[in-house]
Amino acid sequence: MTREDALALDAADPLAPLRERFILPEGVIYLDGNSLGVLPRATPALIADAVTRQWGRDLIRSWNDADWIGAPQRIGAKIAPLIGATAHEVIVADSVSVNLFKLLAAALALRTGRSTILTEPGNFPTDLYVANGLAALVPGVTVRTASLADIPQALGPDTAVLLLTHVHYKSAHRRDMALLTAQAHAAGALMLWDLSHSTGAVAVDLAIANADLAVGCGYKYLNGGPGAPAFLFAAERHLAAIVSPLTGWMGHAAPFAFTDDYRSAPGMTRFLAGTAPMLSLLALEAGVDAFVGVDMAQVENKSAALAQILIDRLAATDLELASPARPAERGSHLVFRHPHAYELTQALIARQVIGDFRAPDLLRLGLTPLTLSHTQVWDAATTIADTFTSGAYRDPKFSVRARVT
Amino acid sequence: MTREDALALDAADPLAPLRERFILPEGVIYLDGNSLGVLPRATPALIADAVTRQWGRDLIRSWNDADWIGAPQRIGAKIAPLIGATAHEVIVADSVSVNLFKLLAAALALRTGRSTILTEPGNFPTDLYVANGLAALVPGVTVRTASLADIPQALGPDTAVLLLTHVHYKSAHRRDMALLTAQAHAAGALMLWDLSHSTGAVAVDLAIANADLAVGCGYKYLNGGPGAPAFLFAAERHLAAIVSPLTGWMGHAAPFAFTDDYRSAPGMTRFLAGTAPMLSLLALEAGVDAFVGVDMAQVENKSAALAQILIDRLAATDLELASPARPAERGSHLVFRHPHAYELTQALIARQVIGDFRAPDLLRLGLTPLTLSHTQVWDAATTIADTFTSGAYRDPKFSVRARVT
Repeated sequence: MTREDALALDAADPLAPLRERFILPEGVIYLDGNSLGVLPRATPALIADAVTRQWGRDLIRSWNDADWIGAPQRIGAKIAPLIGATAHEVIVADSVSVNLFKLLAAALALRTGRSTILTEPGNFPTDLYVANGLAALVPGVTVRTASLADIPQALGPDTAVLLLTHVHYKSAHRRDMALLTAQAHAAGALMLWDLSHSTGAVAVDLAIANADLAVGCGYKYLNGGPGAPAFLFAAERHLAAIVSPLTGWMGHAAPFAFTDDYRSAPGMTRFLAGTAPMLSLLALEAGVDAFVGVDMAQVENKSAALAQILIDRLAATDLELASPARPAERGSHLVFRHPHAYELTQALIARQVIGDFRAPDLLRLGLTPLTLSHTQVWDAATTIADTFTSGAYRDPKFSVRARVT
Repeated sequence: MTREDALALDAADPLAPLRERFILPEGVIYLDGNSLGVLPRATPALIADAVTRQWGRDLIRSWNDADWIGAPQRIGAKIAPLIGATAHEVIVADSVSVNLFKLLAAALALRTGRSTILTEPGNFPTDLYVANGLAALVPGVTVRTASLADIPQALGPDTAVLLLTHVHYKSAHRRDMALLTAQAHAAGALMLWDLSHSTGAVAVDLAIANADLAVGCGYKYLNGGPGAPAFLFAAERHLAAIVSPLTGWMGHAAPFAFTDDYRSAPGMTRFLAGTAPMLSLLALEAGVDAFVGVDMAQVENKSAALAQILIDRLAATDLELASPARPAERGSHLVFRHPHAYELTQALIARQVIGDFRAPDLLRLGLTPLTLSHTQVWDAATTIADTFTSGAYRDPKFSVRARVT
């Protein structure tokens, strides 16, 4: 493959026009949209309007007139088609961590008599931390971990919920959602999927998988901005009985009646707790709106093509592919293992190719099909190979561990 | 008192120059800054920079370069002097509801062997809802309510924590923080204050009161914008032992080590859960920055003067003052009772005097000393008296209950 081939792929790319929906950083090849998505073109004007008109001029009236009050449900409904859900099964609230807490507690309450949360070691840390925090709070609740291959054996009569991440944050390994959900159900457990690294990156169909519960992130592939609120999903069949442990006033059936007794709102609204951070919420809406009309099958195809460029061109280096080689088993990022992955990541950032390091030895490169061209990925591969083979990453300045992310 | 007297008070008002720090709504007298604070003048440019430069151009690098990662602690430290705390005792995170959950659970863990949360009926509903939600989740935990006068008798050997609101959201009654904290301590319980309606409105000194725990709201008197993140406080003496039940990755001692085991960060950082909604967080910072150099004693004095104008001028109407008459017993809002308070509130909004209705029969008027002039309050009183005595509020259009806030 030559650079001309990459240009030809771009010319034939049905998703290429989508790049116009974003403001892309000048002079940078951004391979970290899986960690913080880029800025949608519509966002600055929308946020400026939210600040100066909706807040500054109309003030409290905007809860009604700008429908701030309906934003969590409205944005949830827009996320629904990206994850194979119906509109009223999804709502936007809080963070992934807080939503995991809500849904793990809700799952335990739905499966009375069962007290074990089953998950896997090496899951995204907050998933493990939150599960263990819930177990520390509620006597009798246990967290058990089993590697993916051992999940069928580890599921048992005490398993209330199986918590897994659809696309692994490090390896990018994509789990078989239908198979694992069926295994959980066969044991009488509920299935809770963390979609943080898959929503907007690969096709997700919670309905076909018959999943029970899910959470996902707003600031990665959904381009909702730094720390964008997260979303949660519960299948229609659970909406009558499900309860949230975080019974805040915005999840009340009539929050402005200000009664002393809690009465949960219908459906997913009960998973609201406090008042939503509206500026961040409206930025998320602009990010989700950038997916209108996008065919997720095309997104997956392009992701595979972008990844193959990197895999092929880096095959000659000492970088070891630590993600599945087959696209169907991957999300939309790749990791490569190397003892000097940290220094290499820093050296690449200095050369305007931005990926990230994941301890202890992984270079992680996100491939966001809505915003990257084949040629950019080809050029990034050239820079990576050169930085690596030239030894430029050995400059001592790149080994200073000052960065937090 | 005449309108000329109000103008004279404005001319002598040491806080009058502060109004320049805000963009005040044209043609409106805004008596709802206690519900959603006004827009600080610095905020639009700051948020535009956060969106286009920090996010759009610098992307993931802003976690370091713009110190997004340090924002929760940095803004907490700026709130600290407003509540009589030291910088490292305060952090910004999540919502009041979620923070109440964290601190109630933390209080129960600090008071091993005690299992009762004591609070009062009619507290802000989310406080009651969250306490009851925690009790529903954790077997053995009980929520008991007692009216303020009965608190000393209700405190007992099983009381882990007394949860009260410093300034009541309806009546504006300000509680004696030092007295009630001492009563809780005498019973061996911890004291958790909800400062939502007092932070930035009246002088608060958690240190003098010897309070243990507190939460507060960012979107009211702190002018942090709709749904701004909230803050939480724990006294220095508890920081070594206190734990959060919401053990998200941002509260980990080394979140980017991505280890499976949770190890809580030092100090208040352990109360972070997920990634903070950065746009809303930075808007809150601008709101807090508008308090630099503000003397809270002057704020209290002006609040009392503004309130007295309303009280005196509405004394001749059928509106019944349902807030304490003495300023030292009040926060910075007033409520008036009337069977047609709802219609009156709507009629006033139509006349550009914006307050709010609180069920079942209260007109609530917020008096924010940083942004209101004495003359505005004098004019508002004129409009209220006229709307009331003319019967303009009886127009059927004002009885349609469409508003949610």
